[in-house]
This record gives sequence, structure tokens and C-alpha cells, in this order.
Amino acid sequence: MKIVDIIEKKKLGYPLSDDEIKFFIDGIMNGSIEDYQASALLMAVYFKGTDIDETTSLTKYMVQSGETLNLSDISDNIIDKHSTGGVGDKITLMFLPLTAAAGIYSAKLSGRGLGHTGGTIDKLESIPGFRTNLSVKEFKEKVKIHKTAIAAQTLSLAPADGKLYALRDVTSTVDIIPLIASSVVSKKIASGANHIILDVKYGSGAFIKTPEEAQKLSEIMTEVGRRLERNICAVISSMNQPLGRAVGNSVEIIEVIEFLKGNLENDLKEITYTLCYKAFEKAGKFTDKLEAYKYLDELISSGKALDKFKEIIKSQNGDVSIIENYEKLPQASYKYEVKSIKTGFINNIDALKIAKACKNLGAGREKKSDTIDYSAGIYLTHKSSEYVEKGQTVAVIYTNKPETVKESESLIISAYEISDLRPIRQSLIYKIIN
Amino acid sequence: MKIVDIIEKKKLGYPLSDDEIKFFIDGIMNGSIEDYQASALLMAVYFKGTDIDETTSLTKYMVQSGETLNLSDISDNIIDKHSTGGVGDKITLMFLPLTAAAGIYSAKLSGRGLGHTGGTIDKLESIPGFRTNLSVKEFKEKVKIHKTAIAAQTLSLAPADGKLYALRDVTSTVDIIPLIASSVVSKKIASGANHIILDVKYGSGAFIKTPEEAQKLSEIMTEVGRRLERNICAVISSMNQPLGRAVGNSVEIIEVIEFLKGNLENDLKEITYTLCYKAFEKAGKFTDKLEAYKYLDELISSGKALDKFKEIIKSQNGDVSIIENYEKLPQASYKYEVKSIKTGFINNIDALKIAKACKNLGAGREKKSDTIDYSAGIYLTHKSSEYVEKGQTVAVIYTNKPETVKESESLIISAYEISDLRPIRQSLIYKIIN
Repeated sequence: MKIVDIIEKKKLGYPLSDDEIKFFIDGIMNGSIEDYQASALLMAVYFKGTDIDETTSLTKYMVQSGETLNLSDISDNIIDKHSTGGVGDKITLMFLPLTAAAGIYSAKLSGRGLGHTGGTIDKLESIPGFRTNLSVKEFKEKVKIHKTAIAAQTLSLAPADGKLYALRDVTSTVDIIPLIASSVVSKKIASGANHIILDVKYGSGAFIKTPEEAQKLSEIMTEVGRRLERNICAVISSMNQPLGRAVGNSVEIIEVIEFLKGNLENDLKEITYTLCYKAFEKAGKFTDKLEAYKYLDELISSGKALDKFKEIIKSQNGDVSIIENYEKLPQASYKYEVKSIKTGFINNIDALKIAKACKNLGAGREKKSDTIDYSAGIYLTHKSSEYVEKGQTVAVIYTNKPETVKESESLIISAYEISDLRPIRQSLIYKIIN
Repeated sequence: MKIVDIIEKKKLGYPLSDDEIKFFIDGIMNGSIEDYQASALLMAVYFKGTDIDETTSLTKYMVQSGETLNLSDISDNIIDKHSTGGVGDKITLMFLPLTAAAGIYSAKLSGRGLGHTGGTIDKLESIPGFRTNLSVKEFKEKVKIHKTAIAAQTLSLAPADGKLYALRDVTSTVDIIPLIASSVVSKKIASGANHIILDVKYGSGAFIKTPEEAQKLSEIMTEVGRRLERNICAVISSMNQPLGRAVGNSVEIIEVIEFLKGNLENDLKEITYTLCYKAFEKAGKFTDKLEAYKYLDELISSGKALDKFKEIIKSQNGDVSIIENYEKLPQASYKYEVKSIKTGFINNIDALKIAKACKNLGAGREKKSDTIDYSAGIYLTHKSSEYVEKGQTVAVIYTNKPETVKESESLIISAYEISDLRPIRQSLIYKIIN
């Protein structure tokens, strides 16, 4: 078998065999295939795609390229909830306490933020003392005891995907839907959970721009999961606007705590409840949506969900006093109020612009090695469909870099679309793919 | 400027600017662009092509990437004749003596054979003593004195093309017509002649398979040449069957000498005379084809063309006694006659199969570093439209590797298409692009 023949085959639009894909992944791992050959093949895949058989083979061999986590000694029903990434996306931090409080196991290996997308691990690390670098043993023990744990990914999960991704990033071949699908599913399969709930985002603040592409991606991921004996579903929702009002790290932790205390932002509630209901379905706990939603309301009003969040923080060495005293979270030295330049109804708040403004303030990373400022962030005092008057505060900026305020302010102002007409409120959920 | 943006632009089908192409070629030469980025861009070019502006820029910067030969101190009218490569293609060796005998300057830098294509330098080196490694000074002096010289390419002409070609070869991106055009034209421009006559081959024995592709390639090459101030024309002809009867090295030299002695094979005559007539046109020597052909006949019948060939051999240290005594050329130890397995008219002789059989006998190279056996080759005693009886000899094999005879024999037999109907003889020339 020769890689140049495999490239030629794909270039001409023929599907690659399972053996050929194995040869490719093995070659990437053992260095017998050169990067320039891999990148030529990736570009051919951009133009000719891969079918579901090829995508399944690719995913399978990416899983086999590295370590895998075995969770079967904990339970046969363990959930892994994964978001494809968004702006203000703190859903995991409400999903985990809610499902754990409901007695459902979950095990979450998560990443740090990169580019305009925030990372759950960063958000948690803004809680003083919170440990995310758990060993496999610690992680599994905590899942056993507390029904859930969240750790930074330290195992070498699907390293072939990591190698391919690094190459795709510098050769303009990131936006290939079946490769995105393989990338996500391979890491989820290697993470060991048997039930996988994917929170698939599309829109300005997501890397997938249209609902149609998100649907295509979701259909591929669920089918590949099924073929590789995982129970995967995908909830597709809009990420055209930031989720919730807080974008950053410690500001998002506060919003999570507020949510668990009963201050339920509509958009956060819609996504969180939908995902929790999918988890309940998978665990056989509820099959009726109304009952499930009522139960979730009770988990919040009774304080059980908040208690579970405290339990998680404590279990991972975090300072639980932040729950009652937000000032124990990292505080920014500068606070600045952004005023509306128009009067009217807010029709849209561009998620990408808000994300860029937020990264600019110090809350994000350009490169993996960059450090971030946990206290930096943005709080949107006004959200879509709300009325605002010219000169009124629409957002508050938190930063330790005052020199960044001006640029962030312009980005935020330009993110707000204000018109005379009140927009029709629409569901964020586009479709659910089982 | 970032290469990843350039790749993205081409991937989406936008034309690259002159500056972007300069950035790419410079980056390849100075190492700031990685091979894996270049190969991704090349694959995007396979799918999206390059327009004539881009192809011209690419050619221009490939020329500028290396050394160039200045021949303007010899004459303002110097011809460079170049074939895109074929099987049994010895036309250069008749073209140069004929045009030089007619008083027209030509300067020919040539390559060695690779794959199934023979190289003019190899053919000449089968003449004992013949020197092709001329210095630039020697080469130019010989052109001045003898009106022509032929040397192996030792200057670093268009090295960016060499780098790109090496990458294309291992990433299945060789078959991109505008890149082939740039590759050919950049080397011809760097070689210094102002008139360029391209002998463009298509068919089984050429790397371009259809006349339509050959026409497209020719149109691009002539237009790029015009834009870069060279006078280029292209003669497109079929390479479905070997040219002449001899395929190899010393066997082809014998066929050349026979031609110059007046034994004119039809196909060799058609191509050689057509190309010589184009040279006469460019030099302003003849504008009437009949007159030109009559003059060429005279150059042969008078012995002037053969004398010029002797003069070239002598000037480059070759043994001129081979002209009268073919046994002074390298001789193969084994000679084997291939017999027809059918009776009928020969409708076709597949050039690629003959080339493979010939390489198998030791006359070709797989890799640049391989050595070749000058004496190995094939002589086709029967050609297309001739009648042959079962058991009659159709071809003679010459080799020093008797173990290769069996396989070559089967290839040769399968190359011959024999039927009951005499085929209609057709012109080899498909079109001439000025």
C-alpha cells in the first residue's frame, strides 16, 4: 500500500477502504507518512468528502491510536455531555450538578478555551483551589462517590486526531464536516462513557455557521457513534448570541451559581433542561418531558442542585465559600459600563463580537501557552428582545487591562443590533438528532 | 501575508494575486513555507485551477527563483525545441542537425529519462565519448561555432519548480495542467532562447492522455510565453504509438543516423519536418511549407544534415566512427525475436506497453540514481497498418538481462493490436498552437 495511491484515489473521489484508513492513521502515528502527504490527502477530503463507512473507520483508528478510559466498573450508564463550543457556554456547569443530583452518573473530561471559545476547565479554575488535574484513579473515585467529576484531559486520547488537527489548523482544512465529526466522536469514545449527549452549536459564535451544517455534522456523529457501539444523541442549537448574560470565567461561575439558586435565564434554562431531559431519557428516569422539567425545577428550588455543585467544588478542593461570597472569586481592578448609542429593541447581540471583546480584555487565549485572566469578562445587562434607551448601560466590562477597554467597547456596541421592532422570541433549539 | 489565508483563498476558488504567488514561491525557496502547506495549496489548485494571470505569475517567479542563461550575445534568433516526452522520441536528434545545417541557431539543454520516458541526454551518451556536461562557456561557444549544442541541465534553472515537482510527485498532484505549463515554460525561459518550439505529446505513451488536454496545456504555455516576452508555439501530436521503430538508447541513435542518411520513417518525418518548418518560420527563412519541405529533403539527400550531426558529435568529443560502424555503439549480449501470435493488419502498438517492456530490459530508470543500459532496447520490425502473419517476427529485443525477456515479450505481444481490417493512416499532428 502506498500513500500516494491513497491520495490519488481520494482525489478522484473514490471511497477509501478500512485498511487504507488504518494505513493512513498508523502512518501518521509512526511517522512513515509525511505531513505533506497527510495535508494533501486532507485537502482532497475537503473537496471529495468521506462517506459514513470511511468516517467510522477514521474514528475507530483515531480511538485506537491512543489511551482509552474504562468506566465500566463504575456503571453501565455513564453520561458524557459535550458542547462543540460557544460563547458564554456554561451549560456543563449546570448540567452536571442537576443530573448528579438526579442520581445519574456522568464523567466529564474537558478542555481549556482557545480562540474565541471559552473552556469549562478555565471557568472552574477561576474558583480558588479548584483542582482539575485529577489522576485517572482520583477521577473515577470521585465519579463513584459524587456521581460526577470534571477533569482536564491529561490522558493521550485519540492522539492521531491531535496530530491531524494541528496539521489542519495550518493548512486551511479545519472546516471539513466528517473530520470534525471524527474528531469529536473519537475523543468521546476514548473518554469511556457509553451515553454521549452532544450539544451542537451553530451561528456567529460557533465554528459551524449554519443549522444545515450542524445537522449534517450531528447526523454523522450519531451514526458513527451507533456503529461504534455508543449511544449518541445531538441537540442542535443556535449560538448566534451569547448564552446567558455573563461571558468570561469568574463572571460565568457567578451566573451558574445564580442559576442553581433559582435565577433562571431563559436561554440557559432552555438548553440545560433539554440536555438534562436527554440524560434522563438515556438513564431511563423520565420519558415524559413535563415531568422531567418539573423534577428539574424541584432540584433547583429544593437546593439539591446547588448542594451538588458545592459537593463537586469541595471534592475537587475548591473554596465553597464563593457560593455565598462572590468577592472570593478573582476580581478585576477595572469596571466599565458600556452605554447604548441607540434607543429601541435589541434584535441581536453578535456572539462572535462579544467573544472577541472578551478575549481582548484578557479572558481568552490566542495560543495554548497563553495565560488568561479569570476575572476579565463581560456582563450583558440587556439581552435580545429587551428595550434599551440611548445612554443606558447595556453591558459591563471587567478587566485588569484598561488599555483594552476602548476597543472592546466598540466591539460590544457594534455587536448590539437595535431596531424599532420587538423581535419575535424563538426557541434556540433547532433540532434533536437521536 | 499568511500562507494559510492563501490556501483558504484558493480552496474557495478565488484567484491569487501576483504578490501572493511571489510570497508562495519565495516561501518555498527560503523555507518559511512548510511542505505540508505547499502540498495543501497544490491539492487545492488541482481542484480549483489557476487562471492565466496566476499561471503567468507562477512561471515568472519560478524563473526568478534560480539562474538564467543569457544567449543574447550569440544571436537574437535562437531556437529551443522541447518535447513533453514520449516513447521512441528521438526528434531532437534530427531537428538540431537539420536546423543547424539550415543556418538556424539552437541551444538545447536537456534532461535524462525517468519512468517510461526516454531522455535525449541518455541517447547521446550511448555514443562513446560523447560529453553532455558542458560548462555554460563551452555550451555557448559551441552554439556560436556549430549553430547548435546540446548539454545536460547543470545550471539551477527554476529551482522552485524542481522543489514543487518533487512535492507533487509524492502527493498525487502532478496532473495539474497549469502547473505542468508553468514547469515547462519556466525552464524554457530560464534556458535563454527567445524562440521556443514545444512538441506536445498526448496519448498512451505521454503523460497527457487526450488531445483536448494537450490543447489546453499548449494554449496556456503559448499565452504565458507571450506574456513573458517569448515567442512560443506548440505542435500537438499523438504519442499513442512509439515514434519510429527503435525504442531505447543506442538503437535510437542508429535510427537517427539512418534517418539522416535518407531512410525516412513516415512518422519521424512528419514530426521532424513540421517542427523544422516552425523553426524556419520563426527564423524568417521560409513561409511556404512546400519549399521548406523540399529544402529539408535536400539537406538530407546532400548529406549536409548528416555532416552536421557528425560535427556535433565531434564537437562534443563523441566517436564519429559510429556513423559508419554501428557496432561501435554499446551492444547487447542477448537478442530475441518476438513473434506475432495473430495474422492480420496492425491497428495499433501501445506506446506505454512498449516503454514498460523497454524499461524492463534495462533501458530506463525508476529513480534518478538508477543506472541504465545503453544497449538495451526494442526494434519494431512491423508497425501500424502493416500486415503480419502469425509466427512472423514483429519486434526484436536487445538486452543484457535475459531474465527480463519473458515479461517484456508478453508486454510487446499485448501491445500489438491486430485485426482483419487495414487501418486508415492518419496524421499524427492534431493541432498547431501559435
